[in-house]
Amino acid sequence: MRILIINPNSDENTDRLMAEKAKNLALPGVEVDVTHVTRAPKLVASYEDQAISGEEMMEIVRGRGQDYDAFVVACHSDPNLDLVREITDKPVVGIAEASIKIGAAMGNGYAVISPGPKSISKKIALARKYHCDDLLRTIKVSRSDDKEDLLKAAQEARKEFGVDVIVLGCANYTTADGYIERELGCPVLDGVACALFLAAGLVSYQKCKRKF
Amino acid sequence: MRILIINPNSDENTDRLMAEKAKNLALPGVEVDVTHVTRAPKLVASYEDQAISGEEMMEIVRGRGQDYDAFVVACHSDPNLDLVREITDKPVVGIAEASIKIGAAMGNGYAVISPGPKSISKKIALARKYHCDDLLRTIKVSRSDDKEDLLKAAQEARKEFGVDVIVLGCANYTTADGYIERELGCPVLDGVACALFLAAGLVSYQKCKRKF
Amino acid sequence: MRILIINPNSDENTDRLMAEKAKNLALPGVEVDVTHVTRAPKLVASYEDQAISGEEMMEIVRGRGQDYDAFVVACHSDPNLDLVREITDKPVVGIAEASIKIGAAMGNGYAVISPGPKSISKKIALARKYHCDDLLRTIKVSRSDDKEDLLKAAQEARKEFGVDVIVLGCANYTTADGYIERELGCPVLDGVACALFLAAGLVSYQKCKRKF
Amino acid sequence: MRILIINPNSDENTDRLMAEKAKNLALPGVEVDVTHVTRAPKLVASYEDQAISGEEMMEIVRGRGQDYDAFVVACHSDPNLDLVREITDKPVVGIAEASIKIGAAMGNGYAVISPGPKSISKKIALARKYHCDDLLRTIKVSRSDDKEDLLKAAQEARKEFGVDVIVLGCANYTTADGYIERELGCPVLDGVACALFLAAGLVSYQKCKRKF
Amino acid sequence: MRILIINPNSDENTDRLMAEKAKNLALPGVEVDVTHVTRAPKLVASYEDQAISGEEMMEIVRGRGQDYDAFVVACHSDPNLDLVREITDKPVVGIAEASIKIGAAMGNGYAVISPGPKSISKKIALARKYHCDDLLRTIKVSRSDDKEDLLKAAQEARKEFGVDVIVLGCANYTTADGYIERELGCPVLDGVACALFLAAGLVSYQKCKRKF
Amino acid sequence: MRILIINPNSDENTDRLMAEKAKNLALPGVEVDVTHVTRAPKLVASYEDQAISGEEMMEIVRGRGQDYDAFVVACHSDPNLDLVREITDKPVVGIAEASIKIGAAMGNGYAVISPGPKSISKKIALARKYHCDDLLRTIKVSRSDDKEDLLKAAQEARKEFGVDVIVLGCANYTTADGYIERELGCPVLDGVACALFLAAGLVSYQKCKRKF
Repeated sequence: MRILIINPNSDENTDRLMAEKAKNLALPGVEVDVTHVTRAPKLVASYEDQAISGEEMMEIVRGRGQDYDAFVVACHSDPNLDLVREITDKPVVGIAEASIKIGAAMGNGYAVISPGPKSISKKIALARKYHCDDLLRTIKVSRSDDKEDLLKAAQEARKEFGVDVIVLGCANYTTADGYIERELGCPVLDGVACALFLAAGLVSYQKCKRKF
Repeated sequence: MRILIINPNSDENTDRLMAEKAKNLALPGVEVDVTHVTRAPKLVASYEDQAISGEEMMEIVRGRGQDYDAFVVACHSDPNLDLVREITDKPVVGIAEASIKIGAAMGNGYAVISPGPKSISKKIALARKYHCDDLLRTIKVSRSDDKEDLLKAAQEARKEFGVDVIVLGCANYTTADGYIERELGCPVLDGVACALFLAAGLVSYQKCKRKF
Repeated sequence: MRILIINPNSDENTDRLMAEKAKNLALPGVEVDVTHVTRAPKLVASYEDQAISGEEMMEIVRGRGQDYDAFVVACHSDPNLDLVREITDKPVVGIAEASIKIGAAMGNGYAVISPGPKSISKKIALARKYHCDDLLRTIKVSRSDDKEDLLKAAQEARKEFGVDVIVLGCANYTTADGYIERELGCPVLDGVACALFLAAGLVSYQKCKRKF
Repeated sequence: MRILIINPNSDENTDRLMAEKAKNLALPGVEVDVTHVTRAPKLVASYEDQAISGEEMMEIVRGRGQDYDAFVVACHSDPNLDLVREITDKPVVGIAEASIKIGAAMGNGYAVISPGPKSISKKIALARKYHCDDLLRTIKVSRSDDKEDLLKAAQEARKEFGVDVIVLGCANYTTADGYIERELGCPVLDGVACALFLAAGLVSYQKCKRKF
Repeated sequence: MRILIINPNSDENTDRLMAEKAKNLALPGVEVDVTHVTRAPKLVASYEDQAISGEEMMEIVRGRGQDYDAFVVACHSDPNLDLVREITDKPVVGIAEASIKIGAAMGNGYAVISPGPKSISKKIALARKYHCDDLLRTIKVSRSDDKEDLLKAAQEARKEFGVDVIVLGCANYTTADGYIERELGCPVLDGVACALFLAAGLVSYQKCKRKF
Repeated sequence: MRILIINPNSDENTDRLMAEKAKNLALPGVEVDVTHVTRAPKLVASYEDQAISGEEMMEIVRGRGQDYDAFVVACHSDPNLDLVREITDKPVVGIAEASIKIGAAMGNGYAVISPGPKSISKKIALARKYHCDDLLRTIKVSRSDDKEDLLKAAQEARKEFGVDVIVLGCANYTTADGYIERELGCPVLDGVACALFLAAGLVSYQKCKRKF
């Protein structure tokens, strides 16, 4: 099985981090490639950025899509997710969608760690879109991508709101989950990992259904 | 990776159907065993049945649990799910939980096909427990386990409530998903398959976190 | 005050109907122009259609936008509403948003009349985005744009779900509100009219705030 | 078009502030008068105050009502709104209703600034009545009607709850919106202005429907 | 302990039915009187009727109130409930409030049987006020106060919506609960009985608290 | 009428406190006995503890049940409530259920005072099960069973969240309600008292229905 991670941003460093994560996740029988949108800004932040990124995302899925069994949209605002889903019958999973839905399912309240104050309102709208807003207790902004800053934001969310689960709200945080989980003692979720194992599961399940 | 499906009922025919499903799901690198609770009634229906089943479920997890990486509770009332989850650090997934949460995540309204009118109220309570009651449009009772009866119930739900997704609400329906999905043209979910791929994904993810 | 209605579709007949509606709405001191997206399909139906329409919508707002005080996005799927809103400080109102929010505010349950079964799921998602899904009782598909067909669909919604309010779910229904309201005896809302008076009100209010 | 603002309190200073606001709002073609309930207490605070005010509000609407096209109930507890609405076919808009619904519609979370701790519970009940309680993040009590005190309360709400929108929860705050909005950089809503432009829009729309 | 049932309507026949119910409920140590509002219409239907009734309800509570330990507001629209509650420290319970809250608490879905189509929207608003709207599945209108008609409406609600509980939505239905419950096989609730035992319980509890 | 309080824990001191409370509650015509589960741990904390307690709870109800008209499950996690309810037709009320539902019904926001941080997530799940989670503003952990510590926790909840009502979240707090209520000036609810008067009311109501 082959899964393509589509980075809607043009930052190759994020590609590298996600490839490392996929390699360590080591889903049996699953090969993962990572690609990014060259014409997008380094970090998609506005709806216009999303619109710009969308065209090339469709080109990628239509051009190289036949080589893959599923796609992961790998920016924690899930840009153009409905659009990509519409042009393919294969599973398409967003990293915000995967981490928020699994996070909401794991307890009675979760927090999202976010890269900036401008994203707060967008995260709330996403959580609502995914019917998980009733369990979203807070969104904490981290000062940087650094593990210690992320841990600090997560600790605040735990202390102030008693949340059960932490969702890391940016693809660039992908390698911080294990450390923060051990420090906090509660589940910490990275969307890239969540989206990969969900996508792999859905591919297996689709194949299975054809046999019945 | 090894996953144990625990059938809280004592009906071996259900074991057989689930083993067939697991074999066809063919999750790469995942070995699946099925066991059932011998002291339970053939079909767990009441809370007392659930309580009776709970003791042996704990024995199974404590006794044979070290040989497995994850557990699936395989009755669509998710009996003793919180209990089993409490006594092990490994992933434990219920088939109602898995199918309801994935079903709610796949569209803007789902229906559950259920074996009897007495289960309606319990399904509603489960959907609420899992924060998926706002998207549960209807629960349709099927006359039998037969594929044609299940299809008929699903067609009614589609026609009357315009639902996007059908959730099969009994372990004994596990092999009916493919046929109904093709006939209906919308996703049809079996909890056994959903729970298996979620459990497998969570195991991989837990291992991955230890590396970061 | 000048308001520009942007028709995200390329059907000039819809332009004509909306211009007629705006003329009859006759908001005092408000001049209304209508324009459409030439590169869009006749009727925007898919997310890809929406993405195609988005580019020219931005061109319109950036190119001719300085001549207007507010914009109305005039297709009942509110395509690219967040996008247009982001690139201007002036009020931007969608016709779905306006009619759904005013409809939800007018009673204890509303129905949407919709042009086709494929739009049902999208209407539910829009109602949720606008926090009005708890009062959306049903979505009825009308056989055609004809007033009698629309009335029939609305009567069914009234009878089966006891709704207080009918929302007309397509720009092409813009001139049918008065007739259906008189026949039904409950409020019937057209998004074009609702969006125009909301946009005009917001422009006045923005100007007013500068004086305090 | 003529709109009558009914002040359910007997404080003429509030009349004066609202008249000033209406004059600056300057809705084209709209003439606004303000009247108050002479037999009411200076500030309606209890349900008994509301009941006392109700009788004279009905007298006003029945007596002078034929001269007006719409009515605004101008106390931020919306006293007797359902009652007034019942005895006239013309639009009746409450200032709490208008500001809370528009505030909830403008973002993913709003705060209400309120004149006293006793009103907190009533504001929550109103927000629920208007189906806007899910987005009400906090109610902050202001020390006085002074702009600086109101700004301070609004700043706290922004800082502690990250709200998108501020709703001014008292008719006496009607002239403070512009200043606080400029200081805060997010929308600040006064119910008097919101109710006036909504009422004007509904009048135009009612007239328009008669032509179709 | 003495409880006063206040009938906000002027129909003495309702008084008689409620006195009969109270006598048969036979709460130990509880004496129940019934009074009605003489200046009210025979059946309070509009908000204006409610306002008219309110004045005399206050007179009753203030005049004869010192002789009673608690009050029941006995019309299933709970007219002036907040008002009466405000002017006394003693428990005040509405029959809609009591029956809806207990009905919602008894299962996973309830229906209200209502005397007329005009009350549907008001019942929905009441259920929302009491935070019980998520479990209100339907409101069925009964052709008359006759037990057979009420049973028929309740049977329809059971069959079409699978509700667990029936709430009788009018004081005049007070003596029909036992018969319908036996016929249907699910709980059927009359607000008069529910309000009486809740009020009695709250009185005992208030006295008890003074001892600790 | 006789009510049996079943203490699912084995701590006899809790029995003593509850008997004292029942004596002071002094429901007219109601005799209250208290028993505990001898094979349970001193304080039921885990799901396994609950399961262990369940067996003896069923024995109690089946063995001594015919002597009683109703049962109260007296631990604020409501262990095995559905189970006990299933094996008897008599009213069974949980102390968490009773206090949370009455607390939610008394205002626009309540807080629960809880004995430990581990119970927070379980209280949230219970509030959701009982459809009262939307009004649960916070759960405050008290340092001990001491009245002053409980008051302190309740004061914090009042100050930080403006709650209307305090629910005491442990059977061992049963005698602290009066003192805290007087100090705070808002309703403070003990589940033992609430469950007793609800159970007594339901018994009277059941008997009454047989006469109609």
